[in-house]
Amino acid sequence: MENVSSGRPGFVVWLTGLPCSGKSTISNWLLPAIRGTGRNVEILDGDIVRTNLTKGLSFDKEDRDTNVRRVGFVANLLARNGTAVVCAVVSPYRDIRDELRNTVTNFVEVFVDTPAEVCAQRDVKGMWAQAKAGQIKNFTGYDDPYEPPTAPHVHIKTMEESVDQSGQKILDFLKEKGWL
Amino acid sequence: MENVSSGRPGFVVWLTGLPCSGKSTISNWLLPAIRGTGRNVEILDGDIVRTNLTKGLSFDKEDRDTNVRRVGFVANLLARNGTAVVCAVVSPYRDIRDELRNTVTNFVEVFVDTPAEVCAQRDVKGMWAQAKAGQIKNFTGYDDPYEPPTAPHVHIKTMEESVDQSGQKILDFLKEKGWL
Repeated sequence: MENVSSGRPGFVVWLTGLPCSGKSTISNWLLPAIRGTGRNVEILDGDIVRTNLTKGLSFDKEDRDTNVRRVGFVANLLARNGTAVVCAVVSPYRDIRDELRNTVTNFVEVFVDTPAEVCAQRDVKGMWAQAKAGQIKNFTGYDDPYEPPTAPHVHIKTMEESVDQSGQKILDFLKEKGWL
Repeated sequence: MENVSSGRPGFVVWLTGLPCSGKSTISNWLLPAIRGTGRNVEILDGDIVRTNLTKGLSFDKEDRDTNVRRVGFVANLLARNGTAVVCAVVSPYRDIRDELRNTVTNFVEVFVDTPAEVCAQRDVKGMWAQAKAGQIKNFTGYDDPYEPPTAPHVHIKTMEESVDQSGQKILDFLKEKGWL
């Protein structure tokens, strides 16, 4: 494949939020929108990451941190070589996200803000139900904490905005920075 | 950082060979040589990989395979976005290397061919000695197999060539392919 991102800096759009908050929906919206500007894009989403990067890791604090750091490491490798990257990772802990903000090339923290009760109603993969039934332990938003960003670069409120509006806010931020 | 690899395809130089065979020496030679052609290069070497990608994996067959596949996955992400990548990984099993040959973008299998007894004499990190003392189990070349490539793209014989000669053979291959 030819590299078509010539001359433009890479960046990492990091979508953080509760399970079922809408991270994947937004990343799927961003993919063609960013490609449409003539750039390569890589999406590092839950399934890709679990299969290829973090298999075997548990959901305790230490392994979660390893997971998030590892995705950040790979995203940074790509971004510093000029690739546009979108990561959709729950990433519940503020300290690790702040670490990435400080170390990853052109890192954009996007808070996908959806109330827990709405996420639990959507429950696209039935995981909230399993958490409530006690079949999954340490489920973020149920019996494991989610620490919301205090100053995200972009704040998405999925209850008040359409997906188009949310996606456009991210594109606008990237354009403002001169990265798109 | 600006992407300076505009228009030229990415590739993965995959150095396979016994511990202490000379993989890192060659990758350190390649780094400035490839950069000198005006390109970004990423090196995925033992320490970087263990710290950031494969922490917690053991040295049994299954974990080794996971390790090698994971490095290949990341190298492919970079290469398909136009980055030059050099990987220095023992990668002892032929089937997994063949898998990478068939799936990774512009994959160059380089066999760093050094006899086991010479590697054991060099023993830069004292690991061969530890293996012989029984302090490390499943050490490739000692009590774990190394399956040499049957048809590597580049065959480096470190006993017969200088580092300059070995490195140049790899550069020549890349130029012939039109990737450098």
